[in-house]
Amino acid sequence: MINSTKIKNQFKSLQQKIVQTVELVDNKKFLQDTWNRPEGGGGITCILENGSIFERAGIGFSHVFGNKLPPSASVAHPEIINSKWEAMGVSLVFHPFNPFIPTVHLNIRFFIASPVKNADEIWWFGGGTDLTPYYPFKEDVVHFHQTLKDGLDKYGKDLYPKYKKQCDDYFFLPHRNEPRGVGGIFFDDENQLGFEKTSNMVFEVGDMFLNAYMPIVQKRISHKFKQEHKDFQHYRRGRYVEFNLLQDRGTLFGIQSRGRTESILMSMPPHVTWSYDYQPKKGSLEEILYKEFLMPKEWLE
Amino acid sequence: MINSTKIKNQFKSLQQKIVQTVELVDNKKFLQDTWNRPEGGGGITCILENGSIFERAGIGFSHVFGNKLPPSASVAHPEIINSKWEAMGVSLVFHPFNPFIPTVHLNIRFFIASPVKNADEIWWFGGGTDLTPYYPFKEDVVHFHQTLKDGLDKYGKDLYPKYKKQCDDYFFLPHRNEPRGVGGIFFDDENQLGFEKTSNMVFEVGDMFLNAYMPIVQKRISHKFKQEHKDFQHYRRGRYVEFNLLQDRGTLFGIQSRGRTESILMSMPPHVTWSYDYQPKKGSLEEILYKEFLMPKEWLE
Repeated sequence: MINSTKIKNQFKSLQQKIVQTVELVDNKKFLQDTWNRPEGGGGITCILENGSIFERAGIGFSHVFGNKLPPSASVAHPEIINSKWEAMGVSLVFHPFNPFIPTVHLNIRFFIASPVKNADEIWWFGGGTDLTPYYPFKEDVVHFHQTLKDGLDKYGKDLYPKYKKQCDDYFFLPHRNEPRGVGGIFFDDENQLGFEKTSNMVFEVGDMFLNAYMPIVQKRISHKFKQEHKDFQHYRRGRYVEFNLLQDRGTLFGIQSRGRTESILMSMPPHVTWSYDYQPKKGSLEEILYKEFLMPKEWLE
Repeated sequence: MINSTKIKNQFKSLQQKIVQTVELVDNKKFLQDTWNRPEGGGGITCILENGSIFERAGIGFSHVFGNKLPPSASVAHPEIINSKWEAMGVSLVFHPFNPFIPTVHLNIRFFIASPVKNADEIWWFGGGTDLTPYYPFKEDVVHFHQTLKDGLDKYGKDLYPKYKKQCDDYFFLPHRNEPRGVGGIFFDDENQLGFEKTSNMVFEVGDMFLNAYMPIVQKRISHKFKQEHKDFQHYRRGRYVEFNLLQDRGTLFGIQSRGRTESILMSMPPHVTWSYDYQPKKGSLEEILYKEFLMPKEWLE
């Protein structure tokens, strides 16, 4: 029997650990909003807006359950359509104020269903983290990827290359022919390592997130910027909106299944602009971002 | 035989007529971008950004054609899947700078397919126009609806009530439980009046658009506003983005069928904000908008 309460508590602890770390760094408290889902479950939405470093940082925990899955949610496993199920996870997006600090996203989640009495449960983990810089610093991207690789290598040398490729495939905007950023890792339906090892690997991803991202924040926080850099950040944030509303499975599933809108759309950037047919100036940092960073690429030699 | 070239020229004239009127009012020229579609057809994208009145105003004409429809486009008419087809139309969204002037949208379109030699063509028109105010002025909403009703009444007293209801149904955000604005008219698959009368009705909608909207612009253009009004406009524009990217059929069809992204997303507002769980202040104009305007409502007595 899998102890889903233990997993739930690990998700909640991870959320609070990240909240506390960000509060220390930003010197501002998160608003913590607890909500209930009428059909079963609920969540804790933690949000910090207009901080000293983060223009908007949201970290959500949710745990929802029921006795019957919507058909769309059980396509791959028709045997669980009438089963008791639970889904839980932590999801975050940080939008820093300084355009030289990248936006970051992390999500880890767990699903479990009990098809019939005395039969084994069906379960899997999913998740990932990806980095979306506005300005090109190769060492930041390398640090992010290296931290993820080092963490995953403990669970198998094959994981980082596989998850890295899945991330490149997932965070891609076909209508722009652009990746969302410089990638990271992404996995879904993961249970091949067995429950204990998969669960440890997933919470390792949760734990290494701060090591992967916060040193980049510290490194770029004093970088001077002008209005033109903010303008470019606001413009590029439009791609984040386009990805999340046109393509992101979690966002679309949440919206379509009438989840809590304010918690789902916590991932939206605070200030965004669209302008017609933007082209970066020749030789500019913005052009380097497009030409050397916004493409699937091996960042680690 | 239907003369689709005549219809095409009417669409192009309408686009240029609106462009010229807006240029006179705004005292700034549109950029006119002509583009071709590799599979057949193309369009003219007219865009004005950072004008004196309009922060962003886009008017697109497009005419696309082919010899085979994608299955998704011919669900209602399986007999035309292997037919020659043409689709054309004009689509516009105006985002004014002054938050006391509403955002407006207009679209009219024509589709025609020729299933087999000597058989009748299959054709229909679609379209609509809707108003999205940020501040509540009942007389503006009444003027908009009255102008539309007066125009449509010439073609049948049943049209305005029917199209008005279809507009309320279409421009609704279920995840916010809110309409996009104060409605207008919306119709699709329209051919019941016969070709001549339907076509006249549709171009009447195109012609009355300026009469429905421009007097509101003139009336509100001198209304003083503060940063807080701009902030609210930017916040509400987030709903426009959510509608267009999550729900609008034209936008989603365009993106999914790999249309020209910059022309499709010309409808996006120029500056947008998201903030967590916004609630209007008691007794404010913003609260009046939510409580008395953002709901399906009969605006004409």
